[in-house]
Amino acid sequence: MPTATDTALLDQYKTRIVAALESDNLDPIEDLFRDQLSVADMAHLLESIPSRLRDVLWGYIDEDLQGEVLANLHEDIQQGILKRMSPEEFVETTQDVDADDLADLLQQMPVKSSSQALLLMPHDSRRKVEGLLAFPEDTAGGLMNTDMISVRADVTIETVLRYLRKKQLPTPFDVIWVVDRESRYLGSLAVSKLLQSKPEQIVESVMADTPQAIPATADEEEVAQIFERYDLVSAPVVDESGLLIGRITVDDVVDVIIETADHNMMSMAGLDEEDDPFAPVVRSSRDRAVWLGINMATAFIAAAVMSRFEASIAQIVALAVLSPVVASMGGIAGSQTLTLMIRGMATGHITRANLSWMIMRELGVGLINGSLWALVIGSITVIWYGELSLAMVIASAILVNICIAVLSGTLLPFFLKSVDVDPALSGSVILTTLTDVFGFLTFLGLATIFLL
Amino acid sequence: MPTATDTALLDQYKTRIVAALESDNLDPIEDLFRDQLSVADMAHLLESIPSRLRDVLWGYIDEDLQGEVLANLHEDIQQGILKRMSPEEFVETTQDVDADDLADLLQQMPVKSSSQALLLMPHDSRRKVEGLLAFPEDTAGGLMNTDMISVRADVTIETVLRYLRKKQLPTPFDVIWVVDRESRYLGSLAVSKLLQSKPEQIVESVMADTPQAIPATADEEEVAQIFERYDLVSAPVVDESGLLIGRITVDDVVDVIIETADHNMMSMAGLDEEDDPFAPVVRSSRDRAVWLGINMATAFIAAAVMSRFEASIAQIVALAVLSPVVASMGGIAGSQTLTLMIRGMATGHITRANLSWMIMRELGVGLINGSLWALVIGSITVIWYGELSLAMVIASAILVNICIAVLSGTLLPFFLKSVDVDPALSGSVILTTLTDVFGFLTFLGLATIFLL
Repeated sequence: MPTATDTALLDQYKTRIVAALESDNLDPIEDLFRDQLSVADMAHLLESIPSRLRDVLWGYIDEDLQGEVLANLHEDIQQGILKRMSPEEFVETTQDVDADDLADLLQQMPVKSSSQALLLMPHDSRRKVEGLLAFPEDTAGGLMNTDMISVRADVTIETVLRYLRKKQLPTPFDVIWVVDRESRYLGSLAVSKLLQSKPEQIVESVMADTPQAIPATADEEEVAQIFERYDLVSAPVVDESGLLIGRITVDDVVDVIIETADHNMMSMAGLDEEDDPFAPVVRSSRDRAVWLGINMATAFIAAAVMSRFEASIAQIVALAVLSPVVASMGGIAGSQTLTLMIRGMATGHITRANLSWMIMRELGVGLINGSLWALVIGSITVIWYGELSLAMVIASAILVNICIAVLSGTLLPFFLKSVDVDPALSGSVILTTLTDVFGFLTFLGLATIFLL
Repeated sequence: MPTATDTALLDQYKTRIVAALESDNLDPIEDLFRDQLSVADMAHLLESIPSRLRDVLWGYIDEDLQGEVLANLHEDIQQGILKRMSPEEFVETTQDVDADDLADLLQQMPVKSSSQALLLMPHDSRRKVEGLLAFPEDTAGGLMNTDMISVRADVTIETVLRYLRKKQLPTPFDVIWVVDRESRYLGSLAVSKLLQSKPEQIVESVMADTPQAIPATADEEEVAQIFERYDLVSAPVVDESGLLIGRITVDDVVDVIIETADHNMMSMAGLDEEDDPFAPVVRSSRDRAVWLGINMATAFIAAAVMSRFEASIAQIVALAVLSPVVASMGGIAGSQTLTLMIRGMATGHITRANLSWMIMRELGVGLINGSLWALVIGSITVIWYGELSLAMVIASAILVNICIAVLSGTLLPFFLKSVDVDPALSGSVILTTLTDVFGFLTFLGLATIFLL
């Protein structure tokens, strides 16, 4: 089966499918799905069309491949398909799916169906999957697979080679794990080393003591950082007593990295990284309405602050025109700092250890940029309205608001994390509320004191 | 050398270094750097402290390791260190660095120094590096390494095994490439397959025809999508005539994925993904000032629109209080769509082929959410100001602005991409300008027509 490694080719397929679905002549789809697509391609195409048309495409996928395709889909879309599958169909469809993917799929099903499905599975796979389900999905234990090769440290290379000829070897196969008599993890033996050692050499004499084992309870984002930092392809997972219980491979880590990045980006707009861009309109509207509602509330908080100064605005209408400028400069300066902090905290570069440096830096940046833009915006105001006192009021408000913004942008994500709230999700709303409220307060407050 | 696989441990080191740098007793640093840290850890720690203190740490890094540490740093920080290195020092420091990393480093240097450095390199590495420098950094050719193992299709497994014993094998070593007599890429031979084949078997009879070769000119983001979609650990790179010229490994692809994700997230706040969070305050201020300036310009455009209605605002001050609410609801709705589009276009799920579906969907979402929040905000306005006509004006403005916002959010990234402008960087500024301007125009315009 040739795979479409070419994005342009995949896009051609998409155009053909869209045309076929719209013209109701479905033959081109049958041709495509019969022998031109890999499972990854099929999953990608299913993800690229509106949800109501997915059932049509799903029907064209060879039954032997449906399980693999299912495992390759976004969670949101998996749930849609799984909802319409009986436990019997599920077990039938997924018989060739790896244990770790199977465990993930089961977690997308209603508890009742998934426990029924477990009972219907062959004993061997059921035992494997149940072992994996014991770990939360977002930990090293939830990421690992139990298909791995381990050998004892005290055997010869020849023994290892003989052993490997008889086993089913997992992919990717770049390294095997070395354990002691009790299955405790000791180190690794790279396949390249294995190929270049003499048959009579003992494993212990050629093995490496890296990579360090990852505890099954480690958070998946920590796992991703370890893989990235040490350029790993696979890593051993151990339980609390150091026993080797599985391995994590880089393909699953890549998925974690992409999900985390998507999460940070999507959360800042109040979206969920698993949201299907082609979900039904009503469901998308509902999902996004919550975020709009929260933002409406914060907009009305700011409006309420402004309305306290209606008397001042009635006298000097320029205040109404210039207030949004003050609020927005604070919002922009704060969101720059917030983004920098969220990224730095995600990569582990910014922690409590160097937070005080970060605060000093950002305050410095805030003072410099605050002064600069206070001057610029003050000058524009003089030219526009010809009033020096108004210019001085707006300049002071800009400086104060930008400094408040960068300080909030630095401290807010730490505070939110310490109370277990996701800074990427709530940070920007809270920050904008702060910069709007303080922007209006300082500008309209100073104006009321000095201009009226 | 034990590696710190533990994020908590790395953070302990950071605390110790911060304390040492602040107390001027540098002994703990020397202890740490002498034998407890991997090159990846050293790079991470260097990235986590203010730029002015980096020279102190750099001095503690063993000279044999400095090249590797340098290759592990962010571009921004590499440039800082490279600027202070003579071409002689550079060649001396980087003699153990891989050719692909060396090529990347040379591209961070001023042209004059890098060409001097090339002349000083040993003939062999210079030839390799010059070959890699021929490809732009952000293509498959720029990502690939020339250290790889390839064998002919017509030899026996025994011959391959004998050949591998003599060669220096690259990491990760999971697959070898199969080529014809002219070095054209034919397919791959997994090391697991190699270990399980009989010595007398011919490579051709056990090789696989996947993965497909990647053209050297392919864009790095396309390479990342291919690796992600097909779970690859390494992939072959060919020139325009199909000759095998290198291989790309997953660790470099992980870096591309992280950079792309960082780019999308950071650009939306006008930041560069290579920016060093601990750069000197003045430089950071300068970098961020540009973005604040652009946003100030857009804020004044919106203010200018509002000022056209000063007469109306003077009569009904509530308009000043409510205008920012209209503008901000549009901004939020639009940025949700924009974020979804930027992500979907990055993963290849949204292309011209299915754009019309996307427009219909988003317009549907806009109409539903626009109507919902028009109703809610209209009701709040009635309760707050007790004026039905004002409520109807703001409700209409909310509906119109949210629809304009989602349409702009859908079309803008496509338009920007077609004129070769990065949607992640410019999309949100342009979008906010549109939603502010149209928010003020519709709300204040309708108010002027119907309320005065």
